[in-house]
Amino acid sequence: MTLSTTPRSTVQRGKNRAVTEREELHRILDENLICHLGVVVDGAARVLPTGYARDGEVLYLHGSTGARSLRTNAEVCVTVSRLNGIVYARSSFHHSVNYDSVIIYGVPRPVEDKEHALRVITEHLAPGSWDYTRKPTKQELAKTSVLALDLDEASVKIRAEGPVDDEEDIDMPIWAGVLPVVSGYGTPQPAPDLVAAYDVPAHIRSRH
Amino acid sequence: MTLSTTPRSTVQRGKNRAVTEREELHRILDENLICHLGVVVDGAARVLPTGYARDGEVLYLHGSTGARSLRTNAEVCVTVSRLNGIVYARSSFHHSVNYDSVIIYGVPRPVEDKEHALRVITEHLAPGSWDYTRKPTKQELAKTSVLALDLDEASVKIRAEGPVDDEEDIDMPIWAGVLPVVSGYGTPQPAPDLVAAYDVPAHIRSRH
Repeated sequence: MTLSTTPRSTVQRGKNRAVTEREELHRILDENLICHLGVVVDGAARVLPTGYARDGEVLYLHGSTGARSLRTNAEVCVTVSRLNGIVYARSSFHHSVNYDSVIIYGVPRPVEDKEHALRVITEHLAPGSWDYTRKPTKQELAKTSVLALDLDEASVKIRAEGPVDDEEDIDMPIWAGVLPVVSGYGTPQPAPDLVAAYDVPAHIRSRH
Repeated sequence: MTLSTTPRSTVQRGKNRAVTEREELHRILDENLICHLGVVVDGAARVLPTGYARDGEVLYLHGSTGARSLRTNAEVCVTVSRLNGIVYARSSFHHSVNYDSVIIYGVPRPVEDKEHALRVITEHLAPGSWDYTRKPTKQELAKTSVLALDLDEASVKIRAEGPVDDEEDIDMPIWAGVLPVVSGYGTPQPAPDLVAAYDVPAHIRSRH
């Protein structure tokens, strides 16, 4: 299944970077943890880093961040991006970056089954935590708001290649290429108030 | 010098995470490479990943991304954030993330000395590249647009601590703590069209 083709979700600049496979939309959403949620407040844009998780063709947005901005029933823009490399070219002009990026537009709605949505969000942020830790109480569920945004109007843009230099620059004696940007997890740091020296559980220790 | 205190740049939610030192604003901008630029297009928010660099109390925004959105003289919101850790708590409700984040509001203006601004942007993205590679021609400068945004109205929010659990959960037999998220650079990948096996220059090889 391919992505939508509304004018604003059709890539206008750098069309050669546009990707229309829905699987790539899913992959980028699943591989990242934080989105940048754009809303309009008093006529001006506001961009808030926000937790999210994908559930099929729906994106859940954790409402505790930017809750004030989310009270209205208005359209939002959700952008998820990851920097994958610095592209060194022979000219400063053609320096670039490799990246994955997704932009989704839509009007989010409050989630009715908040426990389900929180489970999906928790398992996206911290796989294994839902069953290992204390589950939310009714009071905690009442305090939480989760929004759902359909993955209807979305665009994907990816750059994943070496420098694109001008032909007349190719034989300059200059190294050109890509410096990959990599990320991962460090050594788990126990909370200072742990009451015993519990082993780091496998679902955290083996995370990668 | 402390940050501004307009209502929207005063942290409302999670006030205990607000930071008012201008040095922290500078640090977060300098340590990251991509911002999320929020603009209003046809009444709706649009959030675009964009390259930037700080020059004193001014932020340069590279105009090639989202140029259409930037044609108007309207207000923008620039958000820079980095995920630094996954916070595992004893309850799913108190799971969280450690992060650095900056939000800047303002009306950007076109830069007059584009060569200077491009130098600052290039040296932020790829330190050492400006002097090592071919500098922009007049034609390339004419094709490039750079905007300048004053760092006047900005807020900084940082979470950098362990889980904050409910007191009655502290003695549950559950590991709690922080899994750091780390990033760095991989092995430089030479461009396929390099005409000779040039050594990777020190300013790229030693980048960290």
